[in-house]
Formats: sequence, structure tokens, C-alpha cells
Amino acid sequence: MKLLEERIRHEGTVIGDDVLKVDMFLNHQLDIALIDEMGKAFYEAFQNDGVTKILTVEASGIALAALTARYFGVPVVFAKKTGHRNVGTDLYTAPCHSFTHGTDSTICVSRRYLHENDVILIIDDFLADGNACNALRKLVSDAGATLAGIGIGIEKGFQPGGAALRAEGIKVRSLAIVESMKNGDIVFRPDDAER
Amino acid sequence: MKLLEERIRHEGTVIGDDVLKVDMFLNHQLDIALIDEMGKAFYEAFQNDGVTKILTVEASGIALAALTARYFGVPVVFAKKTGHRNVGTDLYTAPCHSFTHGTDSTICVSRRYLHENDVILIIDDFLADGNACNALRKLVSDAGATLAGIGIGIEKGFQPGGAALRAEGIKVRSLAIVESMKNGDIVFRPDDAER
Repeated sequence: MKLLEERIRHEGTVIGDDVLKVDMFLNHQLDIALIDEMGKAFYEAFQNDGVTKILTVEASGIALAALTARYFGVPVVFAKKTGHRNVGTDLYTAPCHSFTHGTDSTICVSRRYLHENDVILIIDDFLADGNACNALRKLVSDAGATLAGIGIGIEKGFQPGGAALRAEGIKVRSLAIVESMKNGDIVFRPDDAER
Repeated sequence: MKLLEERIRHEGTVIGDDVLKVDMFLNHQLDIALIDEMGKAFYEAFQNDGVTKILTVEASGIALAALTARYFGVPVVFAKKTGHRNVGTDLYTAPCHSFTHGTDSTICVSRRYLHENDVILIIDDFLADGNACNALRKLVSDAGATLAGIGIGIEKGFQPGGAALRAEGIKVRSLAIVESMKNGDIVFRPDDAER
């Protein structure tokens, strides 16, 4: 998605060789017009896949999931990190290591909001090692629901998450794939959907 | 807002005399069509107040803030709970006690995303004692920005947050105000905006 690639190129900050900060438009300050376009792109990619619900994880996936869900006309469920007083105990849970935060946590979803007849589109802002996606996939699987696919804002193509998901036959649509960012020079993988 | 009141009445769960669970449509599973209507109602209330940015706090305010911001055509900034690796150190911070989670934390926003020429609309899903709102107000004040007002999904009118804010002359628009919920019977305050 050219619009997103341009924003990353002009406003993203590379730290070291593997951290990409895009908090001026994607995950601290949110450029709603851009994120709405990203939602539309996910709709174009998955509109024929029978999606009944969008699943993401708090906090930085929520805006992207919400604006995507508007196009589909379906609800969002966001997985919570455990410890919430109001979540209840009747939960699907999955362990999750956060690359960004360097922490191990457990994410959870109330069993009331994922059902075996649901067809789930997972949405997240970033894909690196795939830990969050795999934790979300476990929630979908534990509920007996069907996975329609995974929509990602920015994939780090030099980390193994995306390749592993595609090798399993999962439909993954990443709107920008960063192939490398050595010395602060961001190189994108050509976007199949736009050729 | 009748639509929201009806959803609370039909799907909300009262626990004890003071906890209202609405996680089937507002803060775990998200009814995007409803939240979009709530965003439109905030736009109707604050459209002439020169809003340049919407401020909320992760996680449950984000979807409502994002869908509201679409109507205004302005960015969202969401305050983070501290400990994020990628936030940086150049922050506005405020202490915040969470009524829902029973915890004390610090919320923060990067100084890059709040400026003294900003006119801020604070959006949150719930208002009870006003702790989150007051923490967000401190961030706005520390940045030297102007507060346009506060838009709340559900206000618990029997807790003191809303009355205290209005007594200070702050423009507060709560889309549903629960006056009491003794014995599970939810009573709403009449909605001035709909009379």
C-alpha cells in the first residue's frame, strides 16, 4: 500500500537494525484518515471470505481493527492482557511474548464472544516474530472458530513471523512489508496486491 | 442517547450496586455500528469547538476515540500506561487510579503529540470518579493546550466525577448517565440533548 509505505519512509524512525517507530501515525498518535484507508484495503482483501468478526489484541491493534470492521459491518473483539477485574473467569487464554515490550504475558478473550460458527479475521498493527498472531490464533482455535486470514499494517519481512504463517497456508495481507532497514535505510518488499 | 440507553438496559449486567458490565458491545466485544453512532453524537456536541485532536487512554477508549475522530477529521492520541519500550522518555505524565481495575498507574503521552496550540477533546468509555479524565486533563494542561470538553460513553451519575467536572465549568457530554442501578434496576438521568 503505497500510502502507508510513503508515511513509513518519511516519518518512521529506525532504531538500531530492527526497531521501527511509527508512533506519529499508527500506534500512539493515530492518523485516522490513513488508518481508515488501511481498513478499506483489508476489506478489499478479505471481503469474500465470510468474515463474521474481527479479532485483535489491546492496545495498538484496536483503532485499526475498529476502522476495518466498519467496512465489514461486523463486531470487533479485542483480547485483553490478563488481570482485568471485569473480564470474568470464563476465558480462552494464550501465552504471548511481546517483541516490542520484551515481556511475557497471557492474553484472553471471554468465551461469550468467540463461537465455533465465527469466521475470524485477525488484525494487528505489526507482525515480527508472529507471537501475537499465534496467540490470537490459539484463541480462535480453542473456540473452534474458523480463521479467514490475518491483516497486518506493517510486517517486518526480515523476521520469521510472516513467512511461517504463509508456509502454513494462512492468507496474510500485510499492507507494508519492510524487507530491511540497515543503517536506517528502509527497503520495502514489492506489494503483490498493487502490481 | 436512546440507542445506547436501550443497549445498556437490555444487555448490560449490574454487579453489586456499582459495577456495570457492558463488555458485549463497548469494551471487549465492540459493536462498531453503535460506537460509530456515539462518535457522531460527540461530533454533533463539539463540532463548533475548534477541536484539533482527540485524546483518550488505552485500551477501552481507543475504538470510541477513533470512530469519533473520523467525523472531526482530526488525529487521536492515546495515553499509554507506562512501561512501554517504544514510548521514549520525553513525556507528559499523570498519576491515575483505575476504579475498574483497582490499581494505581501512571499514564503518559509523548510531548511530540500535544502542543500548546492544540484544542483537545477528551473521549472515554466510562466516567465514574473522574480519575482517568483528571489524569488526561493534567496532560492537556501540562502541554499548555486548550480543553474543548469531554465526551463520555457512560457516566455513572451516582459517582462524583461528572458533577465535579461540570462544577468547574467544563463542557461534558455523556451519552448515557446512569442515575442508579440498585438491585439491578438501571435508571437513567433524562438526556438534555434529546429533549
